[in-house]
Amino acid sequence: MLQSYLRDAWVSPTAAPDSAIEVRDAITGDVVCRVSNEGLDLAAAFDHARNTGGAYLRDLTFHQRADLLDAVAAAVRESRDDLYALSARAGATLTDARYDVDGGIRVLRDYAARARAELPDAAFLVEGEPERLAKGEDFLGLHLCTPSRGLVLQVNAFNFPVWAPLEKLAQALLAGMPSIVKPATPTAYLTERLVRVIANAGVLPPGALQMVAGSARPALGLLREQDVLSFTGSATTAGVLRTHPAVVARSIRLNAEADSVNAIMLAPDVQPGSRLFAAFVREVTTEMTVKAGQKCTAIRRVLIPREFESAALEAISSELSTVTIGNPASENVRMGAVVSLEQRDEVRRAAWTIAAAGRFVHGSPDKVEVIDADPRRGAFLDTILISADADAGAPHEVEPFGPVASVLAYRDTAHATELLARGRGSLAASLVSDDTPWMTGFLLDAAPWHGRLHILDSVTMTQTTGHGSPLPALKHGGPGRAGGGAEMGGMRGVVDLMQRTALQASPALLATLRS
Amino acid sequence: MLQSYLRDAWVSPTAAPDSAIEVRDAITGDVVCRVSNEGLDLAAAFDHARNTGGAYLRDLTFHQRADLLDAVAAAVRESRDDLYALSARAGATLTDARYDVDGGIRVLRDYAARARAELPDAAFLVEGEPERLAKGEDFLGLHLCTPSRGLVLQVNAFNFPVWAPLEKLAQALLAGMPSIVKPATPTAYLTERLVRVIANAGVLPPGALQMVAGSARPALGLLREQDVLSFTGSATTAGVLRTHPAVVARSIRLNAEADSVNAIMLAPDVQPGSRLFAAFVREVTTEMTVKAGQKCTAIRRVLIPREFESAALEAISSELSTVTIGNPASENVRMGAVVSLEQRDEVRRAAWTIAAAGRFVHGSPDKVEVIDADPRRGAFLDTILISADADAGAPHEVEPFGPVASVLAYRDTAHATELLARGRGSLAASLVSDDTPWMTGFLLDAAPWHGRLHILDSVTMTQTTGHGSPLPALKHGGPGRAGGGAEMGGMRGVVDLMQRTALQASPALLATLRS
Repeated sequence: MLQSYLRDAWVSPTAAPDSAIEVRDAITGDVVCRVSNEGLDLAAAFDHARNTGGAYLRDLTFHQRADLLDAVAAAVRESRDDLYALSARAGATLTDARYDVDGGIRVLRDYAARARAELPDAAFLVEGEPERLAKGEDFLGLHLCTPSRGLVLQVNAFNFPVWAPLEKLAQALLAGMPSIVKPATPTAYLTERLVRVIANAGVLPPGALQMVAGSARPALGLLREQDVLSFTGSATTAGVLRTHPAVVARSIRLNAEADSVNAIMLAPDVQPGSRLFAAFVREVTTEMTVKAGQKCTAIRRVLIPREFESAALEAISSELSTVTIGNPASENVRMGAVVSLEQRDEVRRAAWTIAAAGRFVHGSPDKVEVIDADPRRGAFLDTILISADADAGAPHEVEPFGPVASVLAYRDTAHATELLARGRGSLAASLVSDDTPWMTGFLLDAAPWHGRLHILDSVTMTQTTGHGSPLPALKHGGPGRAGGGAEMGGMRGVVDLMQRTALQASPALLATLRS
Repeated sequence: MLQSYLRDAWVSPTAAPDSAIEVRDAITGDVVCRVSNEGLDLAAAFDHARNTGGAYLRDLTFHQRADLLDAVAAAVRESRDDLYALSARAGATLTDARYDVDGGIRVLRDYAARARAELPDAAFLVEGEPERLAKGEDFLGLHLCTPSRGLVLQVNAFNFPVWAPLEKLAQALLAGMPSIVKPATPTAYLTERLVRVIANAGVLPPGALQMVAGSARPALGLLREQDVLSFTGSATTAGVLRTHPAVVARSIRLNAEADSVNAIMLAPDVQPGSRLFAAFVREVTTEMTVKAGQKCTAIRRVLIPREFESAALEAISSELSTVTIGNPASENVRMGAVVSLEQRDEVRRAAWTIAAAGRFVHGSPDKVEVIDADPRRGAFLDTILISADADAGAPHEVEPFGPVASVLAYRDTAHATELLARGRGSLAASLVSDDTPWMTGFLLDAAPWHGRLHILDSVTMTQTTGHGSPLPALKHGGPGRAGGGAEMGGMRGVVDLMQRTALQASPALLATLRS
């Protein structure tokens, strides 16, 4: 029975084992743990966060909070082998686990360094220079960002059980806000291990970090005006959170990152056989296979000039056929399993739906060859490439959260722009071209529909961090269907959690605040 | 029958007069107009905004858009006498009308000047310097703000029929977005006149500005992912908008400014009889009487050190007794009527509710002496000062949207801080003190609950623009109960309407964009 970390102590739910949710190993199907929030005193935990954790954090300066980030990073680094090993139970290869664990450590360190460089050694932030608000010199205005007097409730997705809580924690700690983490049930045991590592290190003030396993629903009614609800998951759940009576009545700030049917677009200037074309093919297959395609940023739609369609289908299929699938503990395996049998079945259904507008070019939803595992017990899927009608609905509407992508042929620039927009708002898109003037115009049309644009050309292809990697320097979050949220983007992600207040005052008072 | 301005033409609803809503003169009770949206083709209007208005505006540079703002300002200025005269029918004195009309002109001009000074002569914005994202020099990141491919739907409150649409229009035009204005029915005829003035001037591109009278509800389902819903009004209506299926499913950006029980706090250092005390008393009475208290920023709660309570009650009451009430057309009248009899009755109920936790010190909800008008036909109210128990609920929870304030005595600094926070988030608070060190600490505790803090001291009191005046330089919008939105704040209000996209690209491409 998975414990929760509330009021600086580990507590077990009161549920009988058979009334809790069983979480199973993605490879073997064995039960890993049971999850329930029955009998947990969430109200007391929320009070503890606001009154104790918040009070401690608000009193620290940004630089002191940065030290906390480094201390957490060091503690997680110390235990990373342990986290890698446990990640395999969720179907992750070592590469996948590093993406999650090392990625989380990197965000903490990056934010610590950034805070020291870009924020003052003070507990609040003064933005910009005072501006005269009247004719005289004595009535000035500026903006102040102070820590909100609430908590950040993280409601996380299953796919990044380490990176996601750390990325959100980094920004919350710097903003002077305590966090309560609600992990997704299928990988809650990984987040539990992470929180245990941090708690054991004793590096955070009391109440700065708590974790509650089980359903998020009872926690929502406890949210207050100064809290932030930071959600990653499906658009359906985002809708439930958005319309929760407490969220609505108290104007709770909700940052949502939801479904996103991300695209990559090959421009007409990139000839099959070129080095850039090869880089494009690698980008597609990497995005399809890292974490078995379970990244919210992963490429789902591959837009190709009509004349290159068959060349692209062939090249991607050929690359996909080299991908070995199976038990992540086995050395020869490149792609592991998706997180659960339920998730596998959902991906299968999504693939069939998209294929109804086309045909399978590589792989099949219902057949997979695996290394060192039982395909009936593990949540394995083959890599699946679908050639689909670009003007059909499903390829733009259905997000197969697994190793599945559809190839869509476009007629001309206007068609390509229109197809990108048919995602109704995405987290990220890659645009592949060496034609800089053409690309400049194209990306300005594509930009309003995307949170991030990754331009792959012959210059960037050797240094890129990849289509799917959100970076602390850059905004993460897209408009519309992608949830409309924003995280990171350097210090924007920290300031967004704080309360911005316009201040109208005398020069003497402003000087005191700025000193 | 009030017309709507759709697809660059004035159209009448198809409703029979007796099925439309009657809008009555606040002073005489005569019917001013009838409002209905029956038979209006809103879907075509929305398409026109996005496809025609948006396309025109996106092609302009920020500086060209600034020229539009100046042209609109000039057109409105030309017709301001006409707008002043019409404002009297809504109960507004000439001072009130100027606040609304001249205030709107000022926002346009301020934003035009600001855009020329702070934004490039380009159609989009590049934020900051490129940052290295990998070890090499060839993979860089920065953020781009481009015009969203949607429209701004304004759903406005009745109290600023000229200022509010212009303030929102200024920011939308600069952001490259077309606007559809849905005025509140009780003063829709004033916004209609404003839009007519702008349309007749022929200064905006086709589709850049449309106006729809009547209920907002049918328009909500037409909103799409790139649109923005900009709302000012009650928390109840904000809740309806937030939970509308289209808004939820499409992650429509909603900027809400809702109820706010704003406070002024007199610090213990300000002695009754001092000049600063007199300035405080003036601030309270001005806020209670300008626009008959129908400002979302108006002072509703007056926090006083216990020892000065009776002095404050006496001073404010004495100032209020000089306020003459009646027909705004009459020269001797300082305060006009509230907008309608329904609104008057609602304020009466609110005043009685608050008074249940105290007593009336000045005025009464049910009695008023008026100049040159019939108090049975006009929506007149006396100025009402209530002395209430500071620890009761009603004074912090009930927003009497009229000339009503409650005086609440606090025991000590901690109590004053707690009382401010009991507004659960406000647009603005005034803090009155000459004790700069004390004030610095106090305002940092108050800030997270407020969108704006107005510090009144012996230096600022001679130059202040007043507690209740939102300024283009400063953020307007408060957390929690105040709706959680943000407008203006200089260029923040423009950038917030645009789509921010992280861009990962080569130095050559970024140089092209920045050139």
